[in-house]
Amino acid sequence: MSSVRVERDTMGEVEVPADRYWGAQTQRSLQNFDIGGPTERLPPPLIKAFAILKKAASIVNVGYGLDTKIAEAIQKAADDVISGKLNDHFPLVVFQTGSGTQSNMNVNEVISNRAIEILGGEMGSKKPVHPNDHVNMSQSSNDTFPTAMHVAAVTELSQSLIPALSGLRDALDAKSKAFEHIIKIGRTHLQDATPLTLGQEFSGYVQQVSNGIDRIQGVLPRLSLLAQGGTAVGTGLNTKKGFDVKVAQEISQLTGLEFKTAPNKFEALAAHDALVEAHGALNVVACSLMKIANDIRYLGSGPRCGLGELSLPENEPGSSIMPGKVNPTQCEAITMVAAQVMGNQTTVSIAGSNGQFELNVFKPVMIKNVLQSIRLLADGSRSFTKNCVVGIQANEKRIQTLLNESLMLATILNSHLGYDNVAKAAKKAHKEGTTLKEATVSLGLLSPQEFDEKVRPELMLYPDP
Amino acid sequence: MSSVRVERDTMGEVEVPADRYWGAQTQRSLQNFDIGGPTERLPPPLIKAFAILKKAASIVNVGYGLDTKIAEAIQKAADDVISGKLNDHFPLVVFQTGSGTQSNMNVNEVISNRAIEILGGEMGSKKPVHPNDHVNMSQSSNDTFPTAMHVAAVTELSQSLIPALSGLRDALDAKSKAFEHIIKIGRTHLQDATPLTLGQEFSGYVQQVSNGIDRIQGVLPRLSLLAQGGTAVGTGLNTKKGFDVKVAQEISQLTGLEFKTAPNKFEALAAHDALVEAHGALNVVACSLMKIANDIRYLGSGPRCGLGELSLPENEPGSSIMPGKVNPTQCEAITMVAAQVMGNQTTVSIAGSNGQFELNVFKPVMIKNVLQSIRLLADGSRSFTKNCVVGIQANEKRIQTLLNESLMLATILNSHLGYDNVAKAAKKAHKEGTTLKEATVSLGLLSPQEFDEKVRPELMLYPDP
Amino acid sequence: MSSVRVERDTMGEVEVPADRYWGAQTQRSLQNFDIGGPTERLPPPLIKAFAILKKAASIVNVGYGLDTKIAEAIQKAADDVISGKLNDHFPLVVFQTGSGTQSNMNVNEVISNRAIEILGGEMGSKKPVHPNDHVNMSQSSNDTFPTAMHVAAVTELSQSLIPALSGLRDALDAKSKAFEHIIKIGRTHLQDATPLTLGQEFSGYVQQVSNGIDRIQGVLPRLSLLAQGGTAVGTGLNTKKGFDVKVAQEISQLTGLEFKTAPNKFEALAAHDALVEAHGALNVVACSLMKIANDIRYLGSGPRCGLGELSLPENEPGSSIMPGKVNPTQCEAITMVAAQVMGNQTTVSIAGSNGQFELNVFKPVMIKNVLQSIRLLADGSRSFTKNCVVGIQANEKRIQTLLNESLMLATILNSHLGYDNVAKAAKKAHKEGTTLKEATVSLGLLSPQEFDEKVRPELMLYPDP
Amino acid sequence: MSSVRVERDTMGEVEVPADRYWGAQTQRSLQNFDIGGPTERLPPPLIKAFAILKKAASIVNVGYGLDTKIAEAIQKAADDVISGKLNDHFPLVVFQTGSGTQSNMNVNEVISNRAIEILGGEMGSKKPVHPNDHVNMSQSSNDTFPTAMHVAAVTELSQSLIPALSGLRDALDAKSKAFEHIIKIGRTHLQDATPLTLGQEFSGYVQQVSNGIDRIQGVLPRLSLLAQGGTAVGTGLNTKKGFDVKVAQEISQLTGLEFKTAPNKFEALAAHDALVEAHGALNVVACSLMKIANDIRYLGSGPRCGLGELSLPENEPGSSIMPGKVNPTQCEAITMVAAQVMGNQTTVSIAGSNGQFELNVFKPVMIKNVLQSIRLLADGSRSFTKNCVVGIQANEKRIQTLLNESLMLATILNSHLGYDNVAKAAKKAHKEGTTLKEATVSLGLLSPQEFDEKVRPELMLYPDP
Repeated sequence: MSSVRVERDTMGEVEVPADRYWGAQTQRSLQNFDIGGPTERLPPPLIKAFAILKKAASIVNVGYGLDTKIAEAIQKAADDVISGKLNDHFPLVVFQTGSGTQSNMNVNEVISNRAIEILGGEMGSKKPVHPNDHVNMSQSSNDTFPTAMHVAAVTELSQSLIPALSGLRDALDAKSKAFEHIIKIGRTHLQDATPLTLGQEFSGYVQQVSNGIDRIQGVLPRLSLLAQGGTAVGTGLNTKKGFDVKVAQEISQLTGLEFKTAPNKFEALAAHDALVEAHGALNVVACSLMKIANDIRYLGSGPRCGLGELSLPENEPGSSIMPGKVNPTQCEAITMVAAQVMGNQTTVSIAGSNGQFELNVFKPVMIKNVLQSIRLLADGSRSFTKNCVVGIQANEKRIQTLLNESLMLATILNSHLGYDNVAKAAKKAHKEGTTLKEATVSLGLLSPQEFDEKVRPELMLYPDP
Repeated sequence: MSSVRVERDTMGEVEVPADRYWGAQTQRSLQNFDIGGPTERLPPPLIKAFAILKKAASIVNVGYGLDTKIAEAIQKAADDVISGKLNDHFPLVVFQTGSGTQSNMNVNEVISNRAIEILGGEMGSKKPVHPNDHVNMSQSSNDTFPTAMHVAAVTELSQSLIPALSGLRDALDAKSKAFEHIIKIGRTHLQDATPLTLGQEFSGYVQQVSNGIDRIQGVLPRLSLLAQGGTAVGTGLNTKKGFDVKVAQEISQLTGLEFKTAPNKFEALAAHDALVEAHGALNVVACSLMKIANDIRYLGSGPRCGLGELSLPENEPGSSIMPGKVNPTQCEAITMVAAQVMGNQTTVSIAGSNGQFELNVFKPVMIKNVLQSIRLLADGSRSFTKNCVVGIQANEKRIQTLLNESLMLATILNSHLGYDNVAKAAKKAHKEGTTLKEATVSLGLLSPQEFDEKVRPELMLYPDP
Repeated sequence: MSSVRVERDTMGEVEVPADRYWGAQTQRSLQNFDIGGPTERLPPPLIKAFAILKKAASIVNVGYGLDTKIAEAIQKAADDVISGKLNDHFPLVVFQTGSGTQSNMNVNEVISNRAIEILGGEMGSKKPVHPNDHVNMSQSSNDTFPTAMHVAAVTELSQSLIPALSGLRDALDAKSKAFEHIIKIGRTHLQDATPLTLGQEFSGYVQQVSNGIDRIQGVLPRLSLLAQGGTAVGTGLNTKKGFDVKVAQEISQLTGLEFKTAPNKFEALAAHDALVEAHGALNVVACSLMKIANDIRYLGSGPRCGLGELSLPENEPGSSIMPGKVNPTQCEAITMVAAQVMGNQTTVSIAGSNGQFELNVFKPVMIKNVLQSIRLLADGSRSFTKNCVVGIQANEKRIQTLLNESLMLATILNSHLGYDNVAKAAKKAHKEGTTLKEATVSLGLLSPQEFDEKVRPELMLYPDP
Repeated sequence: MSSVRVERDTMGEVEVPADRYWGAQTQRSLQNFDIGGPTERLPPPLIKAFAILKKAASIVNVGYGLDTKIAEAIQKAADDVISGKLNDHFPLVVFQTGSGTQSNMNVNEVISNRAIEILGGEMGSKKPVHPNDHVNMSQSSNDTFPTAMHVAAVTELSQSLIPALSGLRDALDAKSKAFEHIIKIGRTHLQDATPLTLGQEFSGYVQQVSNGIDRIQGVLPRLSLLAQGGTAVGTGLNTKKGFDVKVAQEISQLTGLEFKTAPNKFEALAAHDALVEAHGALNVVACSLMKIANDIRYLGSGPRCGLGELSLPENEPGSSIMPGKVNPTQCEAITMVAAQVMGNQTTVSIAGSNGQFELNVFKPVMIKNVLQSIRLLADGSRSFTKNCVVGIQANEKRIQTLLNESLMLATILNSHLGYDNVAKAAKKAHKEGTTLKEATVSLGLLSPQEFDEKVRPELMLYPDP
C-alpha cells in the first residue's frame, strides 16, 4: 500500500518509504532509536546548517577533484534542504548516536538521493552521486556535526535572538523615555524606599537587555570557529591540507557571517566548551528576563488590591465579571521560558563536561538545548515586546497616590528640621495612618505651603550637585 | 480557500479554521503566544488526562443537575479526545498563560464543539453544549490544570515508565544470572582491584533499577491527590460540596488507577511540590542510568585498545573497514537522556519554587518537563534494553586474560607466604611485566602447581565464612 | 617551637604536629590537597558518624577475635571523637581522594593514637593499637565511607531537620488557626481574585511543610541501608560472614536509629542513588520554603506602598527615619538557603551519576552537599520560625480595606441581579474608581442595606453545600 | 570572665565581646541568623574588598568635607582589615539580610572602633569616628555590597584563578610538547580509531584551558563596573555628584586593577547579571577540567587491566600489596571541584534571577558561591598541576603495543590493496585475534617488509598535503 524502496548500507538492505529521500542508515536509526517521538527531532536550523556545510564542501571539493556536474547537483540538492522544503526528510531524534553520525548520514543520503533525482538517476542506487564518496567527501561525522552545531548556533543567535533582544531593548527604552518624568516610590526589600522615576526603573531593564546583547556577541568569536577538517579524531586524516580553511571561508560566503577554522581540531571534536559558554550567555539573558518580567507583573498587580502602578495590555479574556483583571500572561510565558533555559544550562553543562578522549558523544543533546534556548528566548522576547511591553501604560494617578502616602519623602526634611523632628513626624504619621504632610503640619513643624515647597520628590532623584 | 468559522468570546469575534474544533480563546492564544512552534505544544498525555477529567466531571455533574443528553455528548466527545484522534486540535504551546487557562479552554472548546456536532448543532454556536457552562461546569482552570497534570503524570509513570524500567531490570537480572560464574577483575578508582563476578557487577545495576522503580512508586501517593474542587483560589467557591471526592472517584474508575481528592486545595493550586518530588525520583533514575550505561560502554570499549570485557550488539554500521568497532550508540542515547532529565530537574525546581499567593503560574512548563522526562526515560529504557542489554555478551577469554595478568590476586597469598614475600613477588612482576605466577615461581616461593592450587579467584568473591 | 612527631606509612616518614592525633596519611593529604581551606573540611556530623562506626566495628570485632583491651580503648577513643572535642584533629577537606580514603585513615589514625595514649603507649608507634589492623579491622575505606555517609545523613535528618520542620509546621499551623476568621482578597496571577481566609492561605503552607516532613521520612528506609561489609569492591573479601549484619545492628543500638545492612553491596559502593534521592527531598523542601517566604514578604510589603496585609517582626534596625520599614530579613535568609540547596541538587546529581565500575569517587562532595543542605534547611527553618513566623501579625484593617475595595465580590451577586447587571456595576466601579457598593447603589440595583446583606464574603469561602 | 562591652544602635543596647571590634548591628545579626555556623561566614576576599572600598571612600570623602584626621584613621583601620589580621572580627554568615546590610555595618563598626582605638577614643562611643556618618559616608549598603562583590570577584579572578589556570595550561603544554612524537591509538565512542600523537591529544587540553583563561578575561569588563554611588535605590540620593567616578578611580589605584563606575546604577543594584555571567565562565572551566581529568584518569587506568597509557605520580599510599596501583586522587579532587562549581552555577542563576524592583536581595549567597567557585578552581588547578600534571609520564611501550594491536591502521592500506582486501585482512585479524600484520601477510597480500613500509602511523597524523 504505502510503497517502499530498498536502500542498502554495509549491513545490508533496508526498506524505506518510497516518498522519502533518506536511505538505509537513516532508516536503521529510526528503528533503533524510538525515543521521544517527532517533537524530539533535531531542530531545522541544524539541518539547514548541515546543508550549508555540504554545499560549501562540494564547492571546495571541486578544487580537490570532485566532478563539477556532481558538485552542482549536490549544491542544488543542498539548496532544497536549506530552503526548508525537505524538512520532513529528516526524521531522526536527538537521542541517537552521540556523535550525530546518523544525522550526518541522513543529510548525505537525502542530498545524494535528491541530487541523483536531479541528474535523472535512480534513488537508492548511489549513482552517480554517492552519499559517502561525494556528499561526505573529505569529511567525517566527527567534524561535520560540530561544524553544523556552530554554524546553526551562530546563525540563530545573529539572525534571530540578537534582533529579538534589540527589539525588546528598544521597546523598553521607549518606555523608559516616555516615563522619565513620572516620579514613583522606590522599593528595596519590597519595602518603601526613596523615590525614583519610572523611567529610571525601566532604564535598569534597558541596561540588562543591552548587556545581554553584548554578552551574546561576546561568545560569537569562539563559536565561529569550525571543526571542519579535523575528520575522525582531529588529525585531519583523509582530508586535504587547506580544506579546513577553505570550507570556513565558503561557509562565511554562503551565510554572510564570519566563520574561521578552529586552531585546534582536537579540542573542537572532543570538547564543546564553546557551546557551554554560549549557553552561559543565554542563561544570563534568561535571568535578566525573569527579573524584568517579575517586576512588571508585580507593578501591574491589581486592579484594586495590588501595586497597580502599571497597566498591561489585555490580550485575552481575563475575568468576565471583573473589569481590570488583566492577567500578566506574557510575563508568565517569558518567565516559563527563563525557567526552561536555566534548566537547559544544567543539561548543556553536564553534556559538555562528558567528552571522552577524542570525541564528545553528547553532541545532539547539546545543540538541541542550545537551539531550543535560542528560539524560546527569541520568540519569547518578540512576543513579550509586541504583546506586553509596547502596550504598558503607567497609572500615573495611582503612582502619585502611593508616592504621597509614603513616608520616605521625610528624608529630604532632615536638613531643614533636624533628624529628631523628622523622625517624630514620620512616627506620628505611621501610627495614625495619616500622610507625612498632615503629621508635619499638625506638629506645627511646617505650614502646608512650606511642606509642599520643601518636600519635592523631584529633588531626590540624583546625587547632590 | 482555506475556509474559516467565526467563534466568539467576551472580547469579540475571531476567525478559526473551519476544520478545527477549537474556538476563540484557543485561537487568540495561538496568535498571542507564537513561541517555539509545534514541538513546544503541550504533550498528548496531558490532553488525554484533561479529557478524562472532563468526562469524569460530566458524569458527576449529572448528579448536580447537568442535562443527561448534554452530559452524554460531552462524554462521547471526550472519548474522541482520549483516543488521540483529535490531537491536531490542541495546538497550544507550553509558553502561554502560566495557569494553563487557555489549554483548559482549548479542551472545553473542542469538546463542546464536537459534542455540538454529535448532537447535530452548529459549531461555534455554543448550543446546546456550552464550553464554560457545561464542559467546564463546577470547574476552574486553576483546579483543572493541576488535576490534569497529576492524572497525566501518574498514568505515564504507571503505564509507561514503570513497565519500561521493569523490563530493563529483568534484562539486567537475566544477564547477572547468566554471568554469575564469570570471574573478573574489579576496578576501583579505575584501578585494578580484587575480583568479583560479572554477575555481581551486574547485580548492582539490577539493584539500582529496582530501587528506581520503588522510588517512582513512592511518589505516586502524593501525586495521586487531585486539586479538582478547589476552583479559582482553593476555597471551592462555585462548585458543590462533595464534587471533589466524586470526581476523584470517577477518574479512578475511568483510569483504573487510584486517585484521591487533595486534603488541602490551597496547596494543590499554589504549589506543585508533588511534581518537584516526582521529578526528583526521575532524576535519580537518570543518575542510575548514566552510571550503568557508562560502565557498559567502558567495559565494551575496544575492540583492541580498550577494556574489551563486553561485546555490545551492533545495530548500525560502525566503521566499514574496522570489524569489531561497535559504537555503544544505545549507551550514548540513554546517557543523553540522563543529561536532559538532570537539566529538567533544575527547570522543574525553579518553576515549582515560584508559586505566588493562591496560584503557581509555571504549570505548563512543569508538566512539559515532567512528561518529557518520563517519556524519554521510558522510551530510552526500552530502547536500551532491547537494542543493547539483551544482546550483551561477555568476552570470557579477554576477561580471563585480564584477571590472570592482574597482580591483585596476590592478596590471597598473604596468609600462605607472608606479606613481605607476596609484596616482593608482586613488585617483581610489575617491574618485569610478567604475571604474578611467573614472578612467584621464579622467586622460588611456589611451584606452578602450588600457585594454581592456592591462587583461586573463586575464593575471593565472598566474606570469609 | 611547634614541636613535631614522626609518623610513618608505607611511603615513609612524615612529620606531624605533636599536639595532633593524626598520622602520616592524614598529613600527606593535608599537603597534597591544599584546596579551599578550613571552610571546606568534611563536616563534623560525618566525623561523628565515622567514630560511631568504628566503635560499632570494634564491638563486633571482639566476636571475631579482636583483643578486648584494644577494643575497649578504641571505644573510649571513639567516644572522644563522638563528643566533638577532637574535631580539630580532622583537618581534611572535601576535595581529596574521591573515595574518602584519607578521611577513613584520619579517623583510624586519630582513634588509634588516642587509644594508644589511653593505654599508655607512644603515639605514632602503632602499638598496641594499629590504625589498620585494629581500628580498620574487617573494613575498607570503600565500605566505611558510604556507611558513615548514610549514618550521618540519617542522623541529621532525623535529629535536626525533621524537628526543625515540625517546629515550623506547628508555628504556621498556629498562625493558620489564629487567622481563620480573617477574610481577605485572594490573588491569582497576582491579580485580585475571590476571597479566602488568611487562615486558609496559611493552611497551604502548613500542608507544604507537613508534606516535606513526610518526604524526608520517605527517603529514610533506603538511606538506612549500610554498605559496611562490602569491603573493597562489594564482595566482602577480607571481612567475616555476618559482620555486615552485626555492625548495622550495633550502629542502630548506638544511635537509637534503625539501620540495616544493604542487600546489595555492589550498588552500595558504586552508586549513591540513596543520597541523590535524599537530596531530592531536600530540594522539594527548599522549593516549598521559597514559595512560603516569598508570599510572606510580599504580603508584608509596605508599610505604605505595598500589600501590607502582614506585619513581620522587626529584629534589627530598618530605616532610622522610616518607622514601619521592616525589612523581611528572615525571608531573605531562608530564600537564600533555598537557592543554595537547589544548586546543591545539581552538584549531588552530577556526582551521583558518575560512579565508575565498583566505586563512586565523588563521595566527599556528595556528603558535604547533603549535610550542608540539611544543616542550612534546619538552621534556616528554626531561625525563620523563631524570628519571623511566630511574630507575624495580620493587619486586619488593611486586609479589610483591600477586600472592600476589591471588585471580585461582585461574583456573588450574579444569582441575584443577573450577570449583565453585575458586570455593569463592576465596570462602573472600575472606571470611576469607586467601590462596588457605591456603583451598585448608584445604579439603583440595590440599596446600601441590601448590598451589605447580600455581599457577604464569608459565604464565598467554601463550595456550595 | 569573658568581658563584654555595651554597644548601641537605634533599637537600643547590645552586649558584645570586649575583645571584638564589631558593634550592635553585627551582634544582632549573629543572634538572629544562627544559620550554618562558621563555615558559612562571608569569605575573607569580600571583607578585604569592603575595606578597600571604605578606604577609597574615605580618601574621596576628604574632598567632600570629611575631616582629614578621621579619614586617616579610617584608612589605617581599613588597612588592618585589608591585611587579614582582623578576619575574626567578621563573624556574619551568608544567610542574613539579602542586601548584606549587616555585613556592611560589620565593616563600618569594625573600622570605626579600630579607628577610634587608633585615635585614643573609647570603643563603642562612636566618637570621634562614627560608623555611619564617617565610615559609611555617602554610601548605602545597597551600593557598597555590590561594589565589594565586584571588587572581590575581579581581584580573585585576576590574582588567583587566572595565574592558576595559566600554570595548568603551561604544564599541559609542556607535556604536549614532550609527547609530540609519541603516536598512539585514537579513541572515539571509546572505540579504537585512527592514530594521533599523545602530544596532539594534550594539545586539546591546552586549548581548553587557554580558552578558559580568555573566557574569564572576557567577563572582567562588565564585572569591573561598580555600583558605588547609586546609594539606596540607584538614584545616588545623599551622595555627591562625581563621587561614583572618583571612588572607582581610587579603588583602581589601590588595587592596581581597572575599575569604572557602572553606567546605570539601577541595574547595578537590582540585578547581578555580571556575576551570573562571570560564573558562567567558571562553569565552562569546570566542564573543561572535568573532561581533562576524566581523560587522564582513564588513560592512567591499570596497572594491568586498564588502558595504562599514562603513569600518574603516586602521592600517597595506594595498595600496600599492589605495586603500580596509583589512584588518580588529584583527578578525583578536581572532578569533585567541577561538580561543585556546576552546582553553584544553578544557585547563582536562581539567585541572580530573583531581583525585585530596586534591589536584588540574594547578594550574599551569590558572592559566596562565586568566590567559592573561584577559590576551588584556583586551588584545585594548582594542586592538579603540581601533584599530577607535571609528573605524568607516558608508558611508551604500552602505547606502542596497543597501537600495533589495533586494526585501525588498516585504513592506510585502502589505496594500496583496495577496500575489499583490506576489509578481508581486518576481519581475519579480528576473528583470529592476530595482528593486522599477521593477517595481511598470511593472506599473501603483503610481505612483512612491505607491511612495515606501508603501514606507518606517522603518516596518519595530518591531512594529505
